[in-house]
Amino acid sequence: MAETLAALRSLMASHSPPLHALVVPSEDYHQSEYVSARDKRREFVSGFTGSAGLALVTMNEARLWTDGRYFLQATQQLSDQWKLMRIGEDPAVDIWMADNLPKDAAIGIDPWCISVDTAQKWEHTFAKKQQKLVQTSTNLVDEVWKNRPAAKINPVIVQPLEFAGRSVANKLKDLREKLIQEKARAIIITTLDEVAWLYNVRGSDVSYCPVVHAFAIVTSVSAFFYVDKRKLSSEVHSYLEENGIEARDYGAVSSDVVLLASNQLTLSSSPKDMEINPSETSITGNDTNEAEKNSHNLIWIDPGSCCFSLYSKMNADQVLFQQSPLALAKALKNPVELDGLKKAHIRDGAAVVQYLVWLDKQMQEIYGAYGYFMESESMNKKKDSETMKLTEVSASDKLEEFRASKEHFRGLSFPTISSVGPNAAVIHYSPDAKTCLELDPNSIYLFDSGAQYIDGTTDITRTVHFGKPSAHEKACYTAVLKGHISLGNARFPNGTNGHALDILARIPLWKDGLDYRHGTGHGIGSYLNVHEGPHLISFRPHARNVPLQASMTVTDEPGYYEDGNFGIRLENVLIVKEADTKFNFGDKGYLSFEHITWAPYQRKLIDLNLLMPEEISWLNAYHSTCREILAPYLDESEMAWLKKATEPISA
Amino acid sequence: MAETLAALRSLMASHSPPLHALVVPSEDYHQSEYVSARDKRREFVSGFTGSAGLALVTMNEARLWTDGRYFLQATQQLSDQWKLMRIGEDPAVDIWMADNLPKDAAIGIDPWCISVDTAQKWEHTFAKKQQKLVQTSTNLVDEVWKNRPAAKINPVIVQPLEFAGRSVANKLKDLREKLIQEKARAIIITTLDEVAWLYNVRGSDVSYCPVVHAFAIVTSVSAFFYVDKRKLSSEVHSYLEENGIEARDYGAVSSDVVLLASNQLTLSSSPKDMEINPSETSITGNDTNEAEKNSHNLIWIDPGSCCFSLYSKMNADQVLFQQSPLALAKALKNPVELDGLKKAHIRDGAAVVQYLVWLDKQMQEIYGAYGYFMESESMNKKKDSETMKLTEVSASDKLEEFRASKEHFRGLSFPTISSVGPNAAVIHYSPDAKTCLELDPNSIYLFDSGAQYIDGTTDITRTVHFGKPSAHEKACYTAVLKGHISLGNARFPNGTNGHALDILARIPLWKDGLDYRHGTGHGIGSYLNVHEGPHLISFRPHARNVPLQASMTVTDEPGYYEDGNFGIRLENVLIVKEADTKFNFGDKGYLSFEHITWAPYQRKLIDLNLLMPEEISWLNAYHSTCREILAPYLDESEMAWLKKATEPISA
Repeated sequence: MAETLAALRSLMASHSPPLHALVVPSEDYHQSEYVSARDKRREFVSGFTGSAGLALVTMNEARLWTDGRYFLQATQQLSDQWKLMRIGEDPAVDIWMADNLPKDAAIGIDPWCISVDTAQKWEHTFAKKQQKLVQTSTNLVDEVWKNRPAAKINPVIVQPLEFAGRSVANKLKDLREKLIQEKARAIIITTLDEVAWLYNVRGSDVSYCPVVHAFAIVTSVSAFFYVDKRKLSSEVHSYLEENGIEARDYGAVSSDVVLLASNQLTLSSSPKDMEINPSETSITGNDTNEAEKNSHNLIWIDPGSCCFSLYSKMNADQVLFQQSPLALAKALKNPVELDGLKKAHIRDGAAVVQYLVWLDKQMQEIYGAYGYFMESESMNKKKDSETMKLTEVSASDKLEEFRASKEHFRGLSFPTISSVGPNAAVIHYSPDAKTCLELDPNSIYLFDSGAQYIDGTTDITRTVHFGKPSAHEKACYTAVLKGHISLGNARFPNGTNGHALDILARIPLWKDGLDYRHGTGHGIGSYLNVHEGPHLISFRPHARNVPLQASMTVTDEPGYYEDGNFGIRLENVLIVKEADTKFNFGDKGYLSFEHITWAPYQRKLIDLNLLMPEEISWLNAYHSTCREILAPYLDESEMAWLKKATEPISA
Repeated sequence: MAETLAALRSLMASHSPPLHALVVPSEDYHQSEYVSARDKRREFVSGFTGSAGLALVTMNEARLWTDGRYFLQATQQLSDQWKLMRIGEDPAVDIWMADNLPKDAAIGIDPWCISVDTAQKWEHTFAKKQQKLVQTSTNLVDEVWKNRPAAKINPVIVQPLEFAGRSVANKLKDLREKLIQEKARAIIITTLDEVAWLYNVRGSDVSYCPVVHAFAIVTSVSAFFYVDKRKLSSEVHSYLEENGIEARDYGAVSSDVVLLASNQLTLSSSPKDMEINPSETSITGNDTNEAEKNSHNLIWIDPGSCCFSLYSKMNADQVLFQQSPLALAKALKNPVELDGLKKAHIRDGAAVVQYLVWLDKQMQEIYGAYGYFMESESMNKKKDSETMKLTEVSASDKLEEFRASKEHFRGLSFPTISSVGPNAAVIHYSPDAKTCLELDPNSIYLFDSGAQYIDGTTDITRTVHFGKPSAHEKACYTAVLKGHISLGNARFPNGTNGHALDILARIPLWKDGLDYRHGTGHGIGSYLNVHEGPHLISFRPHARNVPLQASMTVTDEPGYYEDGNFGIRLENVLIVKEADTKFNFGDKGYLSFEHITWAPYQRKLIDLNLLMPEEISWLNAYHSTCREILAPYLDESEMAWLKKATEPISA
């Protein structure tokens, strides 16, 4: 690690201009949340493995910024050459640089790894001290990373129409209508799941996300797909051709954006004069007339995800800065996707129930626990042998096994959070095989997990106890459950956003002075990313930007975390649908949610005295549907267990 | 009316420069919600009497903008020379002017009647077409208003410390600390209730609001009170002197702001060198050095309420644009004010109960209604004579009579909304003695009313029925009641704003596809304005600006309105207080509400099947407190009625 820093500093010193600091973000060229092994530059430089963070190397310091989910983990993983900067407590990275780096400092960044939004914000901050954001022509980390994993040639796979539900032609048609509406002549699509969604392709370039490392450019007459062509079989080549998509080398996106900016980007297969507005071949000035002409002739980028590198190849006045229209289009699931998501969640629910049945048995046999149903202290039975040990990792492996046995399984949708007792209080806990805890019959066990199936992506959290939960744990579980039910049962007019709804999941917790420090819900993809926008349910301001709309997916996952003791979270995936309300005041139309996740809530953890009759009715109805819907996927003993787990509750 | 328009147009044409349009807002020089008779310029010009609206007169058109509360009323009141512009449906006034008035148009406005925020927004809109906002040197409406009411010389009254709770010295000390914090050397206070609150004075210059037409300027060493000096008795003169407040003529504020801007405003009584920073006597430039110097030397105005006229007398770079610190200081009631508010609400609740008892008797005797308790169709008894007729106005007069009999009564706090059947669906209905409806034993009756007492301002709404309400009316009443209870029972961490809480009052209505088109709660003054900021509970974005804090007041008033049929609203005043939660997650501290309004909810209108056990418990506890707390103010028969009205409910 020390060598890496020394090597980087040497490159920084010899850079032209010499760099006072080098920023190493977590993101890849596509501003992805999860990245491939060879893109884990920040992890390589700092040793910190969390999914979010930013490293800053100066000539005599190294600092790592990360958020509250990772403070503990970062403290453990960073060597003493590194200093942890806590987001929310310490100054933001740009403020810190402006305050601590010299006047006129040159701050290096690989312009492929930073969004336009962030780069512009930083440049604004730096301007106060005449500091400069310097775009390095190569990634300096790659230069010192000797054992950097090679790029994998993972095949591109076509997502069949029977699962995608909408043809590429249909999606391109809508997109081109959006371009006309916004007076744009082209859009550059840089987000991996948007490219995959638009072209109905999938891949395996990033763990947990079935996406391909690729860019797209779409104009009124052309559609380009920038990808390592070695990933394309001849069948895929034909598919692309049939759909009017021209495959080009991944690296060609850069020069093609230059051509696009000067109106010279054309299909290889078509004569030049097929391109629109061939007369406007040079856009260089920025006087009023040029600007007016350009306003009908813009190139659309999403400033939150488009990298600074591609943006820098255009003139600012020819760019339309606006959220990608594909974000919302992708979020509004079509009927085939909704059907697939529902089916995938049923198979997934069956896997979760099988896991619970298996785990219940193990906990009793290995640890002498009273089990899922009985509420007694465990006998703390001596284990037969060390081989019988059940850990957070070995348990989650078993869960994956149950999922992998299901039809259409393609992998997990994120690293399983399998956490015992105090680890469950670590919101984004990821167990490590070497250090993880053993399961404990007298502690809460929380598992948050999901899978990729070709017909849908899943995400579910359940919290269970195999011994005797404390009254406090039950009260907290019940408050979380009440919030989960309250949000799930909400009806609301069109136009309501997830910022307004967020409070519904918190009110039962707030009643006792409890709360949780994360949002309440995120969109989920259709055999795509498990975290998907543009909507969300959260107290954060950006949850106001996009109202919830019928046929969106969203999770409902309140929690409560007591540091050092236990954590509770309950999570189902919901589909937003039109509500069948008695009236329709204001003619807005009203919406409600449909649960599509199926697995029981543990009755032992519920304090029935705290539930209202309508909450009990909801629970009984949900449990009854669980039985019916999962029955075809369970064997007799599993079904017997489920029947017991879903027996009607009375107050 | 036609003459007025003709006269105005003649003045517009002869104005230098000639005006293409003249804007006549509803507001007075202080941007007040309620204004005095002589300030009702918009009403005089247009004939429209609603509390909110804006008139625009061009050489060939006259348009009036108002909001949804007043569409119906405006349609009825406007002559055919006027065109109604519906806010929310039609273009905003500035957009309309930019689109419809010629390039380079001159748009006249009395700069005393428009806030800095609004004027600057308009100027920005007009810039597109090089249109200009022209400040008229006189108010053109006043020039053509022959019978304009004369200014009244209403005495200024000192609000005794036993009711104000905090001395002027104490309030000025806090204010001056705020000035230092914000690097301001002075503040110009233009809002009437802020001036009244700061100097502990009251008046009667505006109906319903016990305020004085006055401005204030406060610096680190001086405090000025701009008021018609004829309103000051010798006692009040002495009081002001004792408190270090210098009274100056109302009209002197203008020239004093000019002096303030050039650092030459001094107390008449003190030598010039007492003023701070006497060296900085001339601020004219706007180069960087000047600006830096000014940044520690600002003049604070609230751009939402300060008029454009006073602002225009300063340089933009010497002004601190920020919400007045008095808005929040005034909203955080001191213990004496809280005590006074509680007492005033008890007396007010007694008046409301006495009114209900009286009304119940009248409805039975005059109209043969079954009354407040029995749920049957009225017999529609023939009235004895026309003199027995009970109307919306005569009923509300009786309500005022009950209030006027109470200690410390000083008047109503807003025009009573007394509304029968379909009129109750008009949210801001104000009955007119000539045209108002007669009470109807078979219709819902809604009354929203309040009073000014020297120890507190009140505001309460109840909805009642003296015959047999329909199942639909009961379902709607119960949904409104559920929302009212849900909001009132909320607990929430410090930092939560009224935008987040608003949904709690709507969820029970949304369940059935019902809603209401107004906010859910506003602050209320302490013998001051019935509508008070800076916080509110609403779906509107500005409800996010200020979190609720302990010792604020806020109303809880959801409703449901069915055009042409009926309206329902229930309103109590709440005090925000620290909640006694079991835990305190995040160490933020949790808040809850305390109801201070006391009057029964009508059991006959509640569908008990729709209430949850905890809602019933809350109702029974509230009703039981009503009995206890109002008993000392009621006679035997009134108390017997209240006992019946507050009998415990069981599901």
